Amino acid sequence: MALEPIRPTDDTARATARRLLRITAAASLGTLDAEGFPAVTLTTMATAFDGTPLLLVSGLSAHTRNLKGDTRVSLLVAQTGRGDPLAHPRMSVFGHAEILEHAEAERLGFTRRYLAHNQKAALYVGLPDFRFVRINIARASLNGGFGKAYELVPADLLCDAAASADLAATEADAIAHLNDDHAEALSLYAERFCRMESGRWRATGLDPEGLNMQAGDQRARLAFPAPVHDGTALRHVLKQLAMEARDAA
Amino acid sequence: MALEPIRPTDDTARATARRLLRITAAASLGTLDAEGFPAVTLTTMATAFDGTPLLLVSGLSAHTRNLKGDTRVSLLVAQTGRGDPLAHPRMSVFGHAEILEHAEAERLGFTRRYLAHNQKAALYVGLPDFRFVRINIARASLNGGFGKAYELVPADLLCDAAASADLAATEADAIAHLNDDHAEALSLYAERFCRMESGRWRATGLDPEGLNMQAGDQRARLAFPAPVHDGTALRHVLKQLAMEARDAA
Repeated sequence: MALEPIRPTDDTARATARRLLRITAAASLGTLDAEGFPAVTLTTMATAFDGTPLLLVSGLSAHTRNLKGDTRVSLLVAQTGRGDPLAHPRMSVFGHAEILEHAEAERLGFTRRYLAHNQKAALYVGLPDFRFVRINIARASLNGGFGKAYELVPADLLCDAAASADLAATEADAIAHLNDDHAEALSLYAERFCRMESGRWRATGLDPEGLNMQAGDQRARLAFPAPVHDGTALRHVLKQLAMEARDAA
Repeated sequence: MALEPIRPTDDTARATARRLLRITAAASLGTLDAEGFPAVTLTTMATAFDGTPLLLVSGLSAHTRNLKGDTRVSLLVAQTGRGDPLAHPRMSVFGHAEILEHAEAERLGFTRRYLAHNQKAALYVGLPDFRFVRINIARASLNGGFGKAYELVPADLLCDAAASADLAATEADAIAHLNDDHAEALSLYAERFCRMESGRWRATGLDPEGLNMQAGDQRARLAFPAPVHDGTALRHVLKQLAMEARDAA
């Protein structure tokens, strides 16, 4: 049986895939249970600075028991929207799950990024059985809508964290500064570029390729025109985009 | 490591589980891929008259290839809503997938029920590679929100189709009659009992335990106070509920 023809991976596919990974806060996790069944459960998620998926799991849950028994997992990240659910992009990310101790998650900046992306997780991150899990990506299958199938490798999804170490170091301060002093620009980004409804938009995450924003349950992501590696370049691109958004008014 | 304490299954848990199965139109499907990974993909779904999950899959898709290799699957049906995604009920249904020929799906009434529940599926049901799949349920894990875990058996999810054969035979006519002559009652059910927004509500499915309705992308399910086994009992309960809804106005 022939499978759906796989299209050659291009920058549009990579951008769709990276957006799905970066904006998603709740995903479907596949683990292998003791009977060898593929067990699908709901999980919250965020990404490390380089795009690696992060989960926060309860030690009392079936998926944690399963991934301790077999590290092979997949994660379905799907865009929801009106009409036929199969018309929207989604991606299955395959990889190996690695449970982290809290000190390690903290050291890697995962804890801060996770709680900024999933504010409700603050309610249980401190409970004794909860742990962060990193999904070390092996491959991914992107479905960008009917007939648009792509097979991706880790380099299609991840960015070079080493090249952006300076930006990573300033992420927390940059987000605080945007939220404290540039609320109007955040609203412009969300409403003009991301076509979201107006609201109290605030920044929740930042990486070399974009800025994540949230207003209540609405989430938006502003993709940068080109990767940004330090605070100076970040200020430049954000100022430029704010000017463009105002001009578009 | 102790797992989350499992609560004894009660009627409230069964009602939540059955509602999730009956109202869901898009679910996450777990299959086993050739490398033994649990592969999670997006699928549309409906239910057979007795509650058995039905899928409509493309022969060109990865999940179809996977379930031909190994019938073990699970299906995550989740209620979405505002705030923390983990605060809403969801269920992982484990079972064995069985691919059906179109004539068999038609004979069992699956085709009609599927297309009524997923109108967009009419666009591809006729394509040569598409097939209906029945998930023969083995067990299910229900999470009704934090600390509310239940392990369910098939009898907790399915109803006795044999006892309701008369209702099954009249389902299509009953739905057409409701949509043609009782649009006002459908709106009352959706808006008063299901607390949905007003809209052009129409009936899409009927089974011994409830009535499914849709208005655009909004879906609602009216659970009957007690199981209904034939057209006479159905007319009685629908009339009674319409009167109660009017009185509540």
